[in-house]
Amino acid sequence: MVELITLYTAKICPYAQRAEIALEEAGLPYKRYEIDLSNKPEWYAPKVNPASKVPAIAYGGPDVAPETPSPESAKIAESLVLLEFIADLSASTKPLLPADPVARARARFFIEAVLSKFIGAFYGALTRGEDPAPVMDAIDILQGLLPEEGYVVGEWSIADAAVTPFLARALVSFKHDIGAYDEGAGKKLYDVQLCTPMQNVSSRPSFKDTWHEDVIIDVYSQRFNELRIQRLAQK
Amino acid sequence: MVELITLYTAKICPYAQRAEIALEEAGLPYKRYEIDLSNKPEWYAPKVNPASKVPAIAYGGPDVAPETPSPESAKIAESLVLLEFIADLSASTKPLLPADPVARARARFFIEAVLSKFIGAFYGALTRGEDPAPVMDAIDILQGLLPEEGYVVGEWSIADAAVTPFLARALVSFKHDIGAYDEGAGKKLYDVQLCTPMQNVSSRPSFKDTWHEDVIIDVYSQRFNELRIQRLAQK
Ligand SMILES: N[C@@H](CCC(=O)N[C@@H](CS)C(=O)NCC(=O)O)C(=O)O
Ligand SMILES: N[C@@H](CCC(=O)N[C@@H](CS)C(=O)NCC(=O)O)C(=O)O
Repeated sequence: MVELITLYTAKICPYAQRAEIALEEAGLPYKRYEIDLSNKPEWYAPKVNPASKVPAIAYGGPDVAPETPSPESAKIAESLVLLEFIADLSASTKPLLPADPVARARARFFIEAVLSKFIGAFYGALTRGEDPAPVMDAIDILQGLLPEEGYVVGEWSIADAAVTPFLARALVSFKHDIGAYDEGAGKKLYDVQLCTPMQNVSSRPSFKDTWHEDVIIDVYSQRFNELRIQRLAQK
Repeated sequence: MVELITLYTAKICPYAQRAEIALEEAGLPYKRYEIDLSNKPEWYAPKVNPASKVPAIAYGGPDVAPETPSPESAKIAESLVLLEFIADLSASTKPLLPADPVARARARFFIEAVLSKFIGAFYGALTRGEDPAPVMDAIDILQGLLPEEGYVVGEWSIADAAVTPFLARALVSFKHDIGAYDEGAGKKLYDVQLCTPMQNVSSRPSFKDTWHEDVIIDVYSQRFNELRIQRLAQK
């Protein structure tokens, strides 16, 4: 039996959106608790996640308010650990990974590639002002792992949950040219590439219901365009 | 039914030993093929792993020689993907992960910590000459995740396979003071810390049968003490 789930999350955070998407796809009921990352509640690190990051899940224990987590619930962090956890919880009701071991390995290999190829390139551009062009190379690598049709391994899987939040944020960043990278560099990429086949994943309700474009544009603009200006000033 | 498994591996490589340990624990028959990393066969990248790294598994297809991999077998790379793959293959005969979703999440969280905390610190010291002291901090973090007794999540699991090859190499490096780090820095740590509770994992046959200390001492000495000398010369 699946026990009580409280998800500590933040609209801005792609890692957290992964967990939200998976919970939505699994159809598991959960309490959603927004953590203000610029002003984290003082109970969060000691009582939920010592690393003080979102996402984290409190699982099981008594039905308490998210602000007063019970010591009796298990606390689980790290988005990829949570994707597997949610897939384990819903394995018998709504599988989020294929049954075939080779297809499962393909899903996990893709997730590894998102981590090792895409995220560093994107965050390098967005937050440290590196050239965003390698993000497109990373997208090409990921595309190369995709089948002709459908999702990452045919049916929708946690591999799709792992990539979509990052891809969507990259597209927003480039479309609106928001980031610490040089002015115009994002827009240029967006105009050339226009759209990617992976974009179709964003049509699912699990994505739409957990996607807050206005928040992302707002926070990214404030934070990263500011960094761009600082970077320019230091040149 | 589990199909034919060929493991492409190298005695020196901790990532590869992870897969070997898991296959031994699973009791799955496999062909072991040693790749000479300093002189890789020219068929390896195009026919087995485009990233040209070990470990990789060829799974299924006809019974061919490892040197002539069949296009009909599935090729799977990345050690952590392989650990999950092997656990999936042996789930019904010899489980390598606990059944409880929370315990599975704890195993995967530990594996993530090995990757994000330990490996970078160790390789930084071994191969780039950084101070090895942070390796001990990383070991402390990992220890903090362990239960009082037994393996990472009680029973032996792929989390143990993920950490042991790296831990064992760190201990060899420090004991013999082999690495690009400053002379004496490894020995000093080894003398202070002497041994760690995690060392007991190395008593299992799956570890001993896949551990080649002489090869590791040999290759590490040649490669990394050379780097230490170069580093000194550049000072
Ligand atoms: N490796 C973690 C990364 C999570 C992460 O970095 N989350 C960010 C927000 S996107 C966070 O909570 N940062 C802490 C902070 O902003 O103080 C995961 O995969 O869950
Ligand atoms: N992320 C990979 C890393 C594997 C890796 O780096 N293997 C090394 C040997 S330890 C390798 O094959 N390097 C290629 C080379 O030496 O050319 C994994 O987890 O399997």
